[in-house]
Amino acid sequence: MPDIIAFGEVMVRLAPPHFQRLEQARSLDLEIGGAELNTAAGLVRLGRSAAWVSRLPDNPLGKLVANRVREIGVSDQFVQFAEDGRCGLYFLEFGASPRASSILYDRKDSSVARAHRGMFDWPAIFNGAKWFHVSGIAAALSPGAAEVVDEAMHAARDAGVKVCMDLNYRSKLWAKDHAAEVMSILLPQVDALIASEADAEHLFGITGDSFTEVAKGLVEKFGVTTVVGTRREASLVWRNRFAAVGYSAGVTHESEWYEVEIVDRLGAGDALAAGLIHGLIDGDLKKGLDYGAAMGALKHTVLGDLPWLTKDEVEAAMQGQGLRIKR
Amino acid sequence: MPDIIAFGEVMVRLAPPHFQRLEQARSLDLEIGGAELNTAAGLVRLGRSAAWVSRLPDNPLGKLVANRVREIGVSDQFVQFAEDGRCGLYFLEFGASPRASSILYDRKDSSVARAHRGMFDWPAIFNGAKWFHVSGIAAALSPGAAEVVDEAMHAARDAGVKVCMDLNYRSKLWAKDHAAEVMSILLPQVDALIASEADAEHLFGITGDSFTEVAKGLVEKFGVTTVVGTRREASLVWRNRFAAVGYSAGVTHESEWYEVEIVDRLGAGDALAAGLIHGLIDGDLKKGLDYGAAMGALKHTVLGDLPWLTKDEVEAAMQGQGLRIKR
Amino acid sequence: MPDIIAFGEVMVRLAPPHFQRLEQARSLDLEIGGAELNTAAGLVRLGRSAAWVSRLPDNPLGKLVANRVREIGVSDQFVQFAEDGRCGLYFLEFGASPRASSILYDRKDSSVARAHRGMFDWPAIFNGAKWFHVSGIAAALSPGAAEVVDEAMHAARDAGVKVCMDLNYRSKLWAKDHAAEVMSILLPQVDALIASEADAEHLFGITGDSFTEVAKGLVEKFGVTTVVGTRREASLVWRNRFAAVGYSAGVTHESEWYEVEIVDRLGAGDALAAGLIHGLIDGDLKKGLDYGAAMGALKHTVLGDLPWLTKDEVEAAMQGQGLRIKR
Amino acid sequence: MPDIIAFGEVMVRLAPPHFQRLEQARSLDLEIGGAELNTAAGLVRLGRSAAWVSRLPDNPLGKLVANRVREIGVSDQFVQFAEDGRCGLYFLEFGASPRASSILYDRKDSSVARAHRGMFDWPAIFNGAKWFHVSGIAAALSPGAAEVVDEAMHAARDAGVKVCMDLNYRSKLWAKDHAAEVMSILLPQVDALIASEADAEHLFGITGDSFTEVAKGLVEKFGVTTVVGTRREASLVWRNRFAAVGYSAGVTHESEWYEVEIVDRLGAGDALAAGLIHGLIDGDLKKGLDYGAAMGALKHTVLGDLPWLTKDEVEAAMQGQGLRIKR
Amino acid sequence: MPDIIAFGEVMVRLAPPHFQRLEQARSLDLEIGGAELNTAAGLVRLGRSAAWVSRLPDNPLGKLVANRVREIGVSDQFVQFAEDGRCGLYFLEFGASPRASSILYDRKDSSVARAHRGMFDWPAIFNGAKWFHVSGIAAALSPGAAEVVDEAMHAARDAGVKVCMDLNYRSKLWAKDHAAEVMSILLPQVDALIASEADAEHLFGITGDSFTEVAKGLVEKFGVTTVVGTRREASLVWRNRFAAVGYSAGVTHESEWYEVEIVDRLGAGDALAAGLIHGLIDGDLKKGLDYGAAMGALKHTVLGDLPWLTKDEVEAAMQGQGLRIKR
Amino acid sequence: MPDIIAFGEVMVRLAPPHFQRLEQARSLDLEIGGAELNTAAGLVRLGRSAAWVSRLPDNPLGKLVANRVREIGVSDQFVQFAEDGRCGLYFLEFGASPRASSILYDRKDSSVARAHRGMFDWPAIFNGAKWFHVSGIAAALSPGAAEVVDEAMHAARDAGVKVCMDLNYRSKLWAKDHAAEVMSILLPQVDALIASEADAEHLFGITGDSFTEVAKGLVEKFGVTTVVGTRREASLVWRNRFAAVGYSAGVTHESEWYEVEIVDRLGAGDALAAGLIHGLIDGDLKKGLDYGAAMGALKHTVLGDLPWLTKDEVEAAMQGQGLRIKR
Repeated sequence: MPDIIAFGEVMVRLAPPHFQRLEQARSLDLEIGGAELNTAAGLVRLGRSAAWVSRLPDNPLGKLVANRVREIGVSDQFVQFAEDGRCGLYFLEFGASPRASSILYDRKDSSVARAHRGMFDWPAIFNGAKWFHVSGIAAALSPGAAEVVDEAMHAARDAGVKVCMDLNYRSKLWAKDHAAEVMSILLPQVDALIASEADAEHLFGITGDSFTEVAKGLVEKFGVTTVVGTRREASLVWRNRFAAVGYSAGVTHESEWYEVEIVDRLGAGDALAAGLIHGLIDGDLKKGLDYGAAMGALKHTVLGDLPWLTKDEVEAAMQGQGLRIKR
Repeated sequence: MPDIIAFGEVMVRLAPPHFQRLEQARSLDLEIGGAELNTAAGLVRLGRSAAWVSRLPDNPLGKLVANRVREIGVSDQFVQFAEDGRCGLYFLEFGASPRASSILYDRKDSSVARAHRGMFDWPAIFNGAKWFHVSGIAAALSPGAAEVVDEAMHAARDAGVKVCMDLNYRSKLWAKDHAAEVMSILLPQVDALIASEADAEHLFGITGDSFTEVAKGLVEKFGVTTVVGTRREASLVWRNRFAAVGYSAGVTHESEWYEVEIVDRLGAGDALAAGLIHGLIDGDLKKGLDYGAAMGALKHTVLGDLPWLTKDEVEAAMQGQGLRIKR
Repeated sequence: MPDIIAFGEVMVRLAPPHFQRLEQARSLDLEIGGAELNTAAGLVRLGRSAAWVSRLPDNPLGKLVANRVREIGVSDQFVQFAEDGRCGLYFLEFGASPRASSILYDRKDSSVARAHRGMFDWPAIFNGAKWFHVSGIAAALSPGAAEVVDEAMHAARDAGVKVCMDLNYRSKLWAKDHAAEVMSILLPQVDALIASEADAEHLFGITGDSFTEVAKGLVEKFGVTTVVGTRREASLVWRNRFAAVGYSAGVTHESEWYEVEIVDRLGAGDALAAGLIHGLIDGDLKKGLDYGAAMGALKHTVLGDLPWLTKDEVEAAMQGQGLRIKR
Repeated sequence: MPDIIAFGEVMVRLAPPHFQRLEQARSLDLEIGGAELNTAAGLVRLGRSAAWVSRLPDNPLGKLVANRVREIGVSDQFVQFAEDGRCGLYFLEFGASPRASSILYDRKDSSVARAHRGMFDWPAIFNGAKWFHVSGIAAALSPGAAEVVDEAMHAARDAGVKVCMDLNYRSKLWAKDHAAEVMSILLPQVDALIASEADAEHLFGITGDSFTEVAKGLVEKFGVTTVVGTRREASLVWRNRFAAVGYSAGVTHESEWYEVEIVDRLGAGDALAAGLIHGLIDGDLKKGLDYGAAMGALKHTVLGDLPWLTKDEVEAAMQGQGLRIKR
Repeated sequence: MPDIIAFGEVMVRLAPPHFQRLEQARSLDLEIGGAELNTAAGLVRLGRSAAWVSRLPDNPLGKLVANRVREIGVSDQFVQFAEDGRCGLYFLEFGASPRASSILYDRKDSSVARAHRGMFDWPAIFNGAKWFHVSGIAAALSPGAAEVVDEAMHAARDAGVKVCMDLNYRSKLWAKDHAAEVMSILLPQVDALIASEADAEHLFGITGDSFTEVAKGLVEKFGVTTVVGTRREASLVWRNRFAAVGYSAGVTHESEWYEVEIVDRLGAGDALAAGLIHGLIDGDLKKGLDYGAAMGALKHTVLGDLPWLTKDEVEAAMQGQGLRIKR
Repeated sequence: MPDIIAFGEVMVRLAPPHFQRLEQARSLDLEIGGAELNTAAGLVRLGRSAAWVSRLPDNPLGKLVANRVREIGVSDQFVQFAEDGRCGLYFLEFGASPRASSILYDRKDSSVARAHRGMFDWPAIFNGAKWFHVSGIAAALSPGAAEVVDEAMHAARDAGVKVCMDLNYRSKLWAKDHAAEVMSILLPQVDALIASEADAEHLFGITGDSFTEVAKGLVEKFGVTTVVGTRREASLVWRNRFAAVGYSAGVTHESEWYEVEIVDRLGAGDALAAGLIHGLIDGDLKKGLDYGAAMGALKHTVLGDLPWLTKDEVEAAMQGQGLRIKR
């Protein structure tokens, strides 16, 4: 009976080593990544149990993904192996100022994009769960996948399971108008929404002079309880400042800011979501933002999308334990 | 004005190092491979000039393929970069007895599979060329690709360019009946056909007690001038015996047999085809089989699909130069 | 409710790459290995469910072991994380004729060697299970570990769970007399015993002109139902012949022999045990030997101690499917 | 008919990974590098065509260099393979503050250093070209190489091809007086000169209070049309500020400054030269400095001496597109 | 007759590459490290001769350590190979802000921890030596090791050899009270003491408003001649500021401060000790601090615990030679 | 006072990994190798002491060579670091049947090739030594090097040190007539000569129906006491049979034959020489051949030119200990 259920796609990530360009590559380092799994993994690292629900091709790449889902401690018990579709891939090039990191997606026609309403037994999956987590990326994969998200959200609601959604608009996956339309259907089922001010404006025309104003706009429009955002100052690629901000019931909290030296920033926002849900399970947004900011900041320091961190490390960072070698 | 024109697909090949299974992989070695390119490259290594004609996606993977085509010395002047389609991939696991090596293809929807009649200016491409090389794989990619092969073969004929085709039936790409139908349209344009006895029987019902009998059947049915086959004895994965056999105008030639220690057997048949065409350019099938067998045998000893060999090495093997360290 | 329960130690294995000697090493490849886990993993690959029971230090190395246990698909739900003890290590040097491979153990004082009677809730663990698997290595770790093995075997018997033991005498871990004494206490609880003729003679003075005679001696002395052995012809390090042999109820079966090209022979016997138990679950020794020999033979071809194989591959080998590249 | 012709040496570059010292090394990463090739490659990346002219040993290292010249897209059609001479090498150690990066050259007796007047058919080579690029390093290789540079410059002038020279004084290769003497012969044929203020003073005694004054001195003394310099602020090894400055016809332009995180600064000046010539082809120094500064800045972020960048990336940097991950 | 004798433990250090967490690791980079050896090696790099005295297991890991001791140029002539004990190990995870680097020790029961009084022939070892160097870590390994340190210090005094000790309190190895007690016995034999203000307070209750005050307290209490400390400003993991400070005979000297970009900060303090002793051999504390700070700063830039630097590089850093590429 | 003195060149060896061709390489594995050092190292591994005498450039590559000489346990106390000359290199490609391994030398102008008579203080070097070892390669480096060999041989004779020479004719280094002339001057000082029948015929016209006849011819012509040869059957690259044969005082001995699986055959003959001298020190040619054959056979199984083996392993092979994993 996992505490958290996450639904979405996981891709195999392939990256040339040592800041090589993909064009030059003679080998690629292989990791896996997917927004919702990253968050589920973060929750497991914080001591929660979690299951990731998806659909993978029944081939070695699909198996590889499931293997590594289990490796980090997330349950794959609800994953379906399919004869149709392929395993999504993405190719990552690490950047350095003034060259941003870049991603080439090769994810069309994945098995999970071929999912459709009725494929998953959501009432069984949500039995005993506390939160459901999904991102806008899952809804963007295909009309079928969007219906599965909708189906899952309603089942979650029916089961008394709260819903967290990370808006995560990706223009490569769907057009703005389509995204806005689908999101407008989904968001009324959401309790906690993670969204950037840019996306709020781009998709819904919601603007404001501050995070709080935008958050209020989202609460008003969609009835969500909580709105959370990432704060990032990024004048360089290898060094940023990072924090979390959240609004609920009229109050805005901001976490500490962290100075981060960046090994791999992929998944930092998803790690933030993990800390957030860790707090929200206890009904404590402030706690969620504190854990989220610390976990998100720490995520920058480890290789891969997954947050290979311990609860002790997250709490040490929250307490400002310093940078001396731990012996 | 390249001597040889080859048309087909090149895929990015990704293989876990050290006999790891794909499921376990943490990194993948990256090579490129495609039957026709492998043959064109072999011809360049033997001192001929060659161009590879294809369609690649206009992204870093497509660029990577073109870079490495040029690196081995094959011209990419006729390659088209496309906005649509993706770069085909294949995942390779190296085996060891009693486990065969295995390949997972992820090549659907490639840019070249979206090629269609009229896309390439074949008369210009064949200007000054001597041979055109293509394999059954190219025709299997899609109906459009099959039409491009047909179009190219006719243009070759019109330009006085001879045609070599490697039958290379792949059941994963198309059904037997479909393949037989398409091949029956293409083969009448072919001068030199590379085919296994198994494929001859499977596709066309041509059988015989010997290679010669099967070859005669193919000559009779399709009007090809020359039929060539690979001989391989493979009771182990790391060590085989290898030779070439060919039939033309009533005479069958067999090359020397080579004892091969196998680093990477992908592309051995394509290297054989290179040696073959090298001889056929000079109108000498025996020479072609001798160079083909030596180059095919040597190909087993180098990493990747491409025949990174020199003409001197091929000729030394043909002369049985021995295995002492060359200093 | 896993089908199979296995108890034992897993060590972190560190091996220099490329046949380097440990003395020369600048990096070490990291795998995990432990006889009982290897077997449990093989059973999972054959479609059974399995849990591995042990005690690991609560530090990153202990976590690494558990991560990789889950990665291969074995449940770690009964693993205990301890404040005391360390993670056993072993250093492996790959050999080539005439130099045998060699292992340097550094496993003293491991957390599981500090296990003692009463630490594990065996009745709960065995609930719903079919077979219990353990090796003589587990009993050799410490007197406490030997008591845990004894405790587990009795609990298995009480729960109607059959017991398979791999004798696996290791002279570095305990003296012959001590081993004989402890084994004589344990073996009466065992249903299926895997043992070499050398160990039977060395520990118990049981000899014979054939495997059958030795097996009969073991059956007679300890009341085991089934005795199984590995057949190996090894005149080289990189190439062996491999088979399984078994005796039960008066009948001796021998599997096919496999010609193996050796990537990594560690864990081959444990993979054999997996195939064996797979058959014994169905009450079919012949099936067990056939799967065991095929799985053991195939294990030689993959890196690490764990049998990264599929049921399809095992069955293909049993059917002599050949060594052509699988596409 | 390439737009740009470059003449010079390319060396094989060997560098220990991970900031190891050469003394400690167990493996070396292999790249190629040479000032003029680096520039030619940069021009190809900006959409121009270019050929590199040189002389390489007819052995695998010479072949390797030619392979990689073609890989990046530069033509090797005018490269000569020689029986005499060797392939120059250089060994690179990456530094970190307060330890500078360092280079050990092993380039004596290279095949190109043995080049002499009359070896290259310059009128044919320059047929259709727009600019000729060479550096002071080429002239420093040997008296024969200096004569080849002189010969080429005159042939360029005769063919209406403009000449760009990067002064690039290297004290290890020749003495100041010798360099000054040779350069004084060559520079009157030069249209665009890249030079540092330090070299201008050291070789020619030309000083000034500003870049403009020094540039004016060079224009006056040698009749060059354009003088260009690199601006670099380097208080650390891993982070610099970088810009370009240029003077022509009484006007001095300075590009934007870029904050660079440094993966590999080798070839940054050569990349700047590529951008410069890209602008000068269009008769636009300002454009040349803008492209040069952006390309030079971006070059710091990729591995190897060659500028593996795209025109889009260069233009995005010029527009200050920011450091968000490009998806 | 080595100038410097050092006694202590060397461990094999195993670190996952690329900022991976140990939990994720598939390979580990192998270096060796031990405080006293690091210092001895630094002295050899500065032109002094040095021998390292210790006890290693007679197995490949012990041999590996001795091999690499010789590789860096330190004599292993006094090292004893033992049948008992193991080779200490430590596992290192590289950090990035806000995650500190961390170390997991697995060093219990090492051969040198089993050393005892009378095992080493100290009078012979000290014959001709000038300084003896040891750290508090050696004394912390075991009561026997502490006695060996005491024995060695007295033998050094008897032989007219000066003694340098780096206090280096490690709470994981021994309790504060025990450390204080043993140190109070040892320190009266010490001439030069390296100690942090934190350790001085923690172990001996010596406090002060400045380094000078604390140093005076240590001189007063234990009769040491010289007290030296490291200065480090560390608001990030990858970038620090670093200097040395020392007190003797009423005068306090501070070195230049160095801005360091950090590849590997392990052994920086030990490299500082090497520079210090280099100066103290000449009776010049100021020189010792200048060399110590430069060598310690430079040590941050090379991989491993050992100071792979040259005397020229150290002196260049002392002269502020700058960060241009050295060609 | 080392038992054995060896003089010769050591080169840095650079080899592409994984059977890549040099043309394709992106990284090179770095080892060192030199005939005489390889032999000296073998003697150290057998328990003798040895020093290697040579001349290295005073740069990081020269330092690297000396570091690794010490690492394997050979003394570098007599090595001179020179301002002139470079470090010899060789590039190795690993082969597989039917492609032999091949070597590209880049060793011209090395520091040791610039050595000349009077540079080394041979009487001091030979003080206390038992045998001097050198190969024909050292004499082939340059006239100066040949004179140094002559000088050393006479000094050895004067000091009562026996001389072992490995003829090792390399046609790339010198012409047959020149080699024959120089060797005819040197061989009269030699006690034990290692020579192939092919070289005996090629250089001196000495032929015979058997090794014994050829050996007698060499004894007769040059007055050497002992003649030793390698026996190798090599129908494949990865697997050979290997033995040693020797003649002295009218008696011919042949060692056991070993079946070898080949990781790296470079240095196998030099390892044989080490075993030979190990026996000859005890005046026992039979012992020398037995150790030589075993050590030479085992050398094939480890990476690099140096014989990273233990005396125990050599003796185990001599006793036919078998190929079971050593635990």
